[in-house]
Amino acid sequence: MGTEKHLIWLDCDFGTDDAAALLCAHGAASLEILGISTLAGNVEAHKTFRNALRLNRLLGADYPVYPGAEAPLVYPAEPGYRFHGENGLGGVELPLPDRWETPAEKAWDALYRTAAAHPGALELIATGPLTNVALALNLHPELQKLLRRIVIMGGAAVGGNKTPAAEFNIYSDPHAAKIVFEAGIPLTMCGLDVTNKAWFSETELARVGACGTPAARFFAESLKTPLQASGQGTVRLHDVTAVLFVSNPELFTGQLAGVRVETRSALTRGKTVTDLWSDQKFPSRNAFVVLGVDRPAFVRRVSELVCSLKAVEN
Amino acid sequence: MGTEKHLIWLDCDFGTDDAAALLCAHGAASLEILGISTLAGNVEAHKTFRNALRLNRLLGADYPVYPGAEAPLVYPAEPGYRFHGENGLGGVELPLPDRWETPAEKAWDALYRTAAAHPGALELIATGPLTNVALALNLHPELQKLLRRIVIMGGAAVGGNKTPAAEFNIYSDPHAAKIVFEAGIPLTMCGLDVTNKAWFSETELARVGACGTPAARFFAESLKTPLQASGQGTVRLHDVTAVLFVSNPELFTGQLAGVRVETRSALTRGKTVTDLWSDQKFPSRNAFVVLGVDRPAFVRRVSELVCSLKAVEN
Amino acid sequence: MGTEKHLIWLDCDFGTDDAAALLCAHGAASLEILGISTLAGNVEAHKTFRNALRLNRLLGADYPVYPGAEAPLVYPAEPGYRFHGENGLGGVELPLPDRWETPAEKAWDALYRTAAAHPGALELIATGPLTNVALALNLHPELQKLLRRIVIMGGAAVGGNKTPAAEFNIYSDPHAAKIVFEAGIPLTMCGLDVTNKAWFSETELARVGACGTPAARFFAESLKTPLQASGQGTVRLHDVTAVLFVSNPELFTGQLAGVRVETRSALTRGKTVTDLWSDQKFPSRNAFVVLGVDRPAFVRRVSELVCSLKAVEN
Amino acid sequence: MGTEKHLIWLDCDFGTDDAAALLCAHGAASLEILGISTLAGNVEAHKTFRNALRLNRLLGADYPVYPGAEAPLVYPAEPGYRFHGENGLGGVELPLPDRWETPAEKAWDALYRTAAAHPGALELIATGPLTNVALALNLHPELQKLLRRIVIMGGAAVGGNKTPAAEFNIYSDPHAAKIVFEAGIPLTMCGLDVTNKAWFSETELARVGACGTPAARFFAESLKTPLQASGQGTVRLHDVTAVLFVSNPELFTGQLAGVRVETRSALTRGKTVTDLWSDQKFPSRNAFVVLGVDRPAFVRRVSELVCSLKAVEN
Repeated sequence: MGTEKHLIWLDCDFGTDDAAALLCAHGAASLEILGISTLAGNVEAHKTFRNALRLNRLLGADYPVYPGAEAPLVYPAEPGYRFHGENGLGGVELPLPDRWETPAEKAWDALYRTAAAHPGALELIATGPLTNVALALNLHPELQKLLRRIVIMGGAAVGGNKTPAAEFNIYSDPHAAKIVFEAGIPLTMCGLDVTNKAWFSETELARVGACGTPAARFFAESLKTPLQASGQGTVRLHDVTAVLFVSNPELFTGQLAGVRVETRSALTRGKTVTDLWSDQKFPSRNAFVVLGVDRPAFVRRVSELVCSLKAVEN
Repeated sequence: MGTEKHLIWLDCDFGTDDAAALLCAHGAASLEILGISTLAGNVEAHKTFRNALRLNRLLGADYPVYPGAEAPLVYPAEPGYRFHGENGLGGVELPLPDRWETPAEKAWDALYRTAAAHPGALELIATGPLTNVALALNLHPELQKLLRRIVIMGGAAVGGNKTPAAEFNIYSDPHAAKIVFEAGIPLTMCGLDVTNKAWFSETELARVGACGTPAARFFAESLKTPLQASGQGTVRLHDVTAVLFVSNPELFTGQLAGVRVETRSALTRGKTVTDLWSDQKFPSRNAFVVLGVDRPAFVRRVSELVCSLKAVEN
Repeated sequence: MGTEKHLIWLDCDFGTDDAAALLCAHGAASLEILGISTLAGNVEAHKTFRNALRLNRLLGADYPVYPGAEAPLVYPAEPGYRFHGENGLGGVELPLPDRWETPAEKAWDALYRTAAAHPGALELIATGPLTNVALALNLHPELQKLLRRIVIMGGAAVGGNKTPAAEFNIYSDPHAAKIVFEAGIPLTMCGLDVTNKAWFSETELARVGACGTPAARFFAESLKTPLQASGQGTVRLHDVTAVLFVSNPELFTGQLAGVRVETRSALTRGKTVTDLWSDQKFPSRNAFVVLGVDRPAFVRRVSELVCSLKAVEN
Repeated sequence: MGTEKHLIWLDCDFGTDDAAALLCAHGAASLEILGISTLAGNVEAHKTFRNALRLNRLLGADYPVYPGAEAPLVYPAEPGYRFHGENGLGGVELPLPDRWETPAEKAWDALYRTAAAHPGALELIATGPLTNVALALNLHPELQKLLRRIVIMGGAAVGGNKTPAAEFNIYSDPHAAKIVFEAGIPLTMCGLDVTNKAWFSETELARVGACGTPAARFFAESLKTPLQASGQGTVRLHDVTAVLFVSNPELFTGQLAGVRVETRSALTRGKTVTDLWSDQKFPSRNAFVVLGVDRPAFVRRVSELVCSLKAVEN
């Protein structure tokens, strides 16, 4: 990898695991975050935007944050309060920065502007519904040639969580997903295939909390809500996998495959039909499908990243 | 109507009949055009944008023109060269203005800004695929409350032209149409039901041409292409009906009805399912469906409007 | 037509207008009914079977009656009590024959056997969902070559009644309809296009009733239920048009067209997409679509047929 | 299990692995085959019917064989010559019995008659598209209460083989599958989840062939075609799993789950959407989904069954 940094844009529907993903990205020395965009998904758009600001303050960071889509392209939003709490951060109250404002520039424009400033270099990590990304591609067709790649948390080669056929993010906005998957940009899909294997136990969570820094305590506290909602004593850090796939690809396994998104049926809405087996039924292998993770190493690395975050003076 | 003017935004995929619609709107004393946006549809987006500029020059007008969507939201574009010629203006070559530039502001942002400057007053006339309008609604949810109404050329209570089930504009971008039809904004649908009745014969076309002004000659010349493509010796002025419905509603008949847009089936893609008969199968009457036109009066009025356009010094 | 008789098979979901259709077919000198099959549709299958027997008795006839499908191929049945009454005959109680039994042979087998006994001669008139016909074609592929033609009451080039997009019979079993429309058998579609024009006023109904024969009184009495349900003081004799199209084709107008049946979308389920206009979008003109009727002549002919039915000794 | 025998009906599209399944069923002392029905699937219907007769002769058996569906309910047939050879038996030529005829009774009627003669006792093993079974249920609604259970080879909780989303049998006739899966009959799905694990190596195949009996030699010879087509040096005995699940359930693992069949989308046509994980998204657990097999024991048991088949005098 050398000493060169990954230039990163984060598009997130903060969300407990989106927050954890930002903590890890902030802590990873190999990643340089150029901007953050937010949108409706786990909770409403105005909450995810403010949550990004709150995390900025928690981290003592000053990442530019741009608000995005308030709903999926075609369907109404269906927030996931059960896993993320009403506020999206598992009920943990984080203060807003003392001074903040809503920028006039929107997610899709800021992402495009940033990509244009770093042609072929920017890597987009998207951990929510793909509405912002699809809009950016629709509004700025040239973006297609500018991005180095897109790494998403979303979809599944096998199974689903929102329905038996579909994962929450892709189900939420299947049309946006179809646009992104067919855009011809190098795409990595961190779907349930890998994210279901990327979990923390209650003990592992507590161990991070014991680091004692505000960020570590927030991490441990906010993830208790999805841990309890899971009913299994574990919490899957879905969105974190997309960040770690960029910072620590050595932890993961996967393969190139053709992936198509179902937009026409109610029963299979948002299914990411993945040709893992035959590798010949679809016209192209359009995604790298992440399938496995070295969980102990994943837990160690995430814990290390989060505990490395210094307490900041607010 | 009094002396108050209709404040109009035109969203068009120029297009021979889009051009005729602009001529009529320019000529109608009761309409004040605040801006024009363009998009891919009858021909490619860069052509429709330039065509708007060419018409500006032909009319000696200076309407602000904003470029919009280069393709439908989800599906690829399928231009209609047969009816509109490769250049979109039936092969008629109109010069560009001596000086012009592409504005940085895009269709969806300019439309929103203008609507916000005239809350509750702006009337949007859309004569192409509804991609720009859908994007404006997605990007600026507040737009929903700002527009006075949307008058579209598109759809059909009965039949189709692109397919037996669907009209060209709605077929082109059914997802955008679904977004617009379900937006809760007062909507008028000038579909094939009325536009198939709003035709000019070859003689009637020639009579306008005989007015001799550049605009009248352009009108007569450019519409020869769709007239010949029709194989019936007539040309349907689809897009003109949407403009005249605003300037001269007394020429039309219609009714409120529930309308839903088909997005899930290939066979019926883009059908505007219209509950003309039972008025009880859909949850709301969301569109005024224009069904009839007084054709002789329509021909007279259009001819009058076009012939009234003065020759301009270029 | 000469003196040769049409050899007819009736497949009906009796049904008030199915009953009227049988009365007309029985009265028409040019038709020879070789058999009747019944199925679920307007009311349940066991009722439609018994209703055929009751009509046999009313007419002093002894047509063989075969029971058929108890439900559509894939979807559950949705009876139409509002128009046909709980008993299917508008609440009119007709006695069963003194002696009757349920034959062991089912609709699809009896129809096939009869068609095979008259190769190329049998004309099938189907006035309910097309389940029996589809099953006969699936079970006996040779039937495809044996039938002279199929005349159905069902579908619509324009509009619907069960939904804004679909007519009751085709909506009820769209898969069966797809099978029948694509079978390659000469097909006539008497859809809502014509049947909505084939109505009786209350006065016209009463005039038939005044003939005083049991059949005429039954006709007038049973059709009061759909007349009142219509809320318009008229009753549309949908199913009768299919019989009269065979006995009196001179009363009707129509055209050949490509017709496809929608089976994939919930919104447009059972729509008979009809290429009336372009005649070029579908691979073949697979149906003669009946569009118009001389209503006064229709009313006269139906009245004459029904009033000609003699009182019979039971 | 005691000494009571399973009363079995086999519905097969013979098919190399259908043939192997029949060999095993014939050899299993705990199974009593009451009848066999055939249909279009791996190869055409007339071939599968004759193949059953050929196998009767090979085995010295006299099972009644009934011909069934010549095509799926709605879609055209798509035979699988690559895996089964043009003749369906991997190119191996087996003679027909010296005397045979095509019975007048069809698959659906014979199955129903047999089920009615053993109410609550008959177990149906279906290893082809579910057309015959769906037709039997449509034609004889009482069948629903008569069958003890249905064990199918078909579908997949995960993945597909005909497409990335669907297995061959369910893809072939999704409408039939929907009818069967929603019939309310206890259902066991031996899908790709288990059948992909139920393979023989070339060596294991040869070992069976070395038993030297005609049946064993046929088994080894006919399965060479799919083994070679697989390109992996192994052959999956899909259909055999359904028979062994009845004779030797101790070899398998699985779980109850809700399963729905996709009939509306082209992309996911015939997918058996299976709620393995949440067990709460579908209204009922309508199928026992077989997921695992003890492959060494499976190979041993199949080999033993096939080698036990005595040479017969022809």
